Amino acid sequence: MTTSGENEVLALFTERIALIKSYEEALAVLYWDLRTGAPRKGMDVRSEAIGNLSGQMFKLSTAPELGDWLTVLEAPTTYAALNEVHQRLVTETRKDYDRSVKIPPKLYQEYVVLTSQAESMWEEAKGNSDYASFEPFLDKIINYTNQFIDLWGVKGTRYDTLLDMYEPGMTTEQLDRVFGGLREKLVPLSAAIAASPHQPETGFLEQTYAKDAQKKFSLFILEQMGFDFAAGRLDESAHPFATGLNPGDVRITTRYLEGDVTSALFGTIHEGGHALYEQNIRQDLVGTTLATGTSMGIHESQSRFWENVIGRSMNFWSRYYGDLQKHFPGQLDVPVEDFYRATNVVQPSLIRIEADELTYNLHIIIRYEIEKLIFNEGVKASELPALWNAKYKEYLGIEPPNDGEGVLQDVHWSGGAFGYFPSYSLGNMYAAQLTDTLERELPNFWELVENGDLLPIKNWLTDKIYQYGKLRTPSELIEGITGKPLDPDYLVEYLKKKYTGIYKL
Amino acid sequence: MTTSGENEVLALFTERIALIKSYEEALAVLYWDLRTGAPRKGMDVRSEAIGNLSGQMFKLSTAPELGDWLTVLEAPTTYAALNEVHQRLVTETRKDYDRSVKIPPKLYQEYVVLTSQAESMWEEAKGNSDYASFEPFLDKIINYTNQFIDLWGVKGTRYDTLLDMYEPGMTTEQLDRVFGGLREKLVPLSAAIAASPHQPETGFLEQTYAKDAQKKFSLFILEQMGFDFAAGRLDESAHPFATGLNPGDVRITTRYLEGDVTSALFGTIHEGGHALYEQNIRQDLVGTTLATGTSMGIHESQSRFWENVIGRSMNFWSRYYGDLQKHFPGQLDVPVEDFYRATNVVQPSLIRIEADELTYNLHIIIRYEIEKLIFNEGVKASELPALWNAKYKEYLGIEPPNDGEGVLQDVHWSGGAFGYFPSYSLGNMYAAQLTDTLERELPNFWELVENGDLLPIKNWLTDKIYQYGKLRTPSELIEGITGKPLDPDYLVEYLKKKYTGIYKL
Ligand SMILES: [Zn+2]
Ligand SMILES: [Zn+2]
Repeated sequence: MTTSGENEVLALFTERIALIKSYEEALAVLYWDLRTGAPRKGMDVRSEAIGNLSGQMFKLSTAPELGDWLTVLEAPTTYAALNEVHQRLVTETRKDYDRSVKIPPKLYQEYVVLTSQAESMWEEAKGNSDYASFEPFLDKIINYTNQFIDLWGVKGTRYDTLLDMYEPGMTTEQLDRVFGGLREKLVPLSAAIAASPHQPETGFLEQTYAKDAQKKFSLFILEQMGFDFAAGRLDESAHPFATGLNPGDVRITTRYLEGDVTSALFGTIHEGGHALYEQNIRQDLVGTTLATGTSMGIHESQSRFWENVIGRSMNFWSRYYGDLQKHFPGQLDVPVEDFYRATNVVQPSLIRIEADELTYNLHIIIRYEIEKLIFNEGVKASELPALWNAKYKEYLGIEPPNDGEGVLQDVHWSGGAFGYFPSYSLGNMYAAQLTDTLERELPNFWELVENGDLLPIKNWLTDKIYQYGKLRTPSELIEGITGKPLDPDYLVEYLKKKYTGIYKL
Repeated sequence: MTTSGENEVLALFTERIALIKSYEEALAVLYWDLRTGAPRKGMDVRSEAIGNLSGQMFKLSTAPELGDWLTVLEAPTTYAALNEVHQRLVTETRKDYDRSVKIPPKLYQEYVVLTSQAESMWEEAKGNSDYASFEPFLDKIINYTNQFIDLWGVKGTRYDTLLDMYEPGMTTEQLDRVFGGLREKLVPLSAAIAASPHQPETGFLEQTYAKDAQKKFSLFILEQMGFDFAAGRLDESAHPFATGLNPGDVRITTRYLEGDVTSALFGTIHEGGHALYEQNIRQDLVGTTLATGTSMGIHESQSRFWENVIGRSMNFWSRYYGDLQKHFPGQLDVPVEDFYRATNVVQPSLIRIEADELTYNLHIIIRYEIEKLIFNEGVKASELPALWNAKYKEYLGIEPPNDGEGVLQDVHWSGGAFGYFPSYSLGNMYAAQLTDTLERELPNFWELVENGDLLPIKNWLTDKIYQYGKLRTPSELIEGITGKPLDPDYLVEYLKKKYTGIYKL
């Protein structure tokens, strides 16, 4: 920064970023509100308001002057003189800007209309297990996505262009390697578990659990995790989610099932993990578009670290099972070991969102392989049900009785979110790899968990990950913290060790 | 509309209106959220988001092209060919447009900063009863307001320009007449009541009322009034309010005091009245800036009609007292007449928001007379405490022991809302005048109330008022429905009749 002209451009640029971030905050509140109790009859007008404000935000994000400012700030000497936050804002904004301006507005508008129709069609098709009614929509969405890939430009394979949206820098080459390694080791592990004579007893879980007590326990556990209730809240919704409006306002939801105490319990810990990430972003990023998680995969690593690594560990329940019992007097009278084993059952199943910690990854690998076939091999929408069923048979040993429980089960494709699924397993792999480092850097890690002394763990994660928001890329974080690129063996070892104990393999 | 050019302008104009309305909806959600439980630590960022979006809306509302479109649509033959909704949109938008563009953005920005500082200063000054610390702020706000009046242009007196913002068409001349008539008759009525030996017994109200039961009864009463829960919701907040995002999403709040069952009860009915208005606006106004109440005074007439005329009537409690008793078993064992009398106590007091149905109007008249002195006679901020205290002595017979319970009690002036106060009493007067017509047009009106058959009343009000939103002006409504301009004698007669019964005058 040498001339006053450049300073002025920087001021205009950061002001525009703040404005865009304000739209993001407003839209996030509107969505949160829609999902936590907005009256039904206001939905149409609300959708229009969301559409109008999104359009305004899109205009501001793709305005020619923003492109001009970026060009000024990208000049080498100017860029070199920027602080790290401004540098990262410039590169992130450039990436979004180029991606957005390459799509002709008319094409994008058509796509928005198509996907919003497709989502309702999908819901109906899933209910009726009627793939034929959804297929033409899916076909069109694939078509549009292919047009977008052409407009954005292909790096590596066509599918890489989609992956990069959710996990910046991730490639098909890398995923083939890690998912290949994972699949190869998880399929036999899953088979060994199925063959074990030591299956956990789960019947005692089938009781009615008062919703109020579930809610109280959810709040208690969040507090134990270090969730800041002055900077967030817990609500209810049909599908649990987390949304960070800003680090001072991070909202999560859960769903209380009276017949299943584990659903809200692990759901809350999961969303709580997402929330800890968003609540602990550095103050100097607040109000910028960097004040959010760096990728879907890293975000998911945090929810899954808290839900699975911590929340489904024996050490955790050694400390908290007594509290859980007190919340449901007379209901949970089995020993803590039995509770631990029952909440860690492995069982190949048809539905991804109900899958256990191990087989979940096989659900993701199937979707990854299919998405790759669609975009890199030109596989058609009409071929997907057969492909889906064959892969379930091969990797999980079971076959969907209908498409509702098969290829139609997930909402993602109806919204065009191709490339998103890998994030979930990336989250599991990152979490395992980070845990390995954590165990070495906090040598009393499991003792802390057993004492319910969770704050040093939250602080370590804040120090290594949370504070940076989008300031570091996923691979910068993982390699910086663990000293190695993503390696699926950490997850394999973690799962092997865990289930060898539970299933006495 | 004859040429395609005009049709195109109309399309652009209505699209802009829809866009502005979307900002209004988003901002209303953001405010509602702030007041119903947004986390404390997110407030600063939220305020900035609100500021940024308000700025964007202001830009869209004052853009030169909007002025050009208005000019095209105002051409006599073009205007004559518009439908009534578009005609009204043009005249309303022109009014707002002219008002907004006349204030230089820099001046307005200074004013926004000043009033936001003044509001915090006021809160502190009120807490410390320290008028001296607030006086310089009030002085400046009066100064800015005077500059705005000059820019907007004076119609009638200077104060008329302010009145017109909250009650379009209302003038000092008209208010002098109605408030004069009101004051003249209410001061002696209030004195007669004070002198009556038949004072209601209220001691039985002082009990602890479970919050849950209060909430249930609030929901029950709203349902009885015809509040549509698929198009609205009831929440809690420190200060009750109603906000209509759109007719399909109208939200009200209440505050439950464990020591006072009447607070949430009448508060809910009051806000429910506001909500019925907003929920029953015509479908063809939805999504336009006409989809809201026509003025503060007419809005308040509806909340006060439901709260006071209906909700504090003997007929209402004949029907609902049994239900109330059932919600608080063993707590309300006095006869219904005693409950009715206890909830209609008249007692001169210092605080406006705690005042009864009668003396409330004297609180307003005092504020009206003072505001008029400020803007029409040049009275200074430094003179207000003495003026305030003298008027309380004269009209209510009591004097504030300090400024916190006197001139500092209301937030309005700290936000520059001069001209707002009269709306409250206009609401009372409109409500009484409308009730007179209602009694004649629905001859079994009081029987309906006594039977809890409230829907025909809601329907009558929908037919006469609610459906029109901002399509009709306050005076068009009142004169059209009652056949007469605003006349304070209806309120006087209503109060005389009511209190003659209660106090056996
Ligand atoms: Zn998640
Ligand atoms: Zn009101």
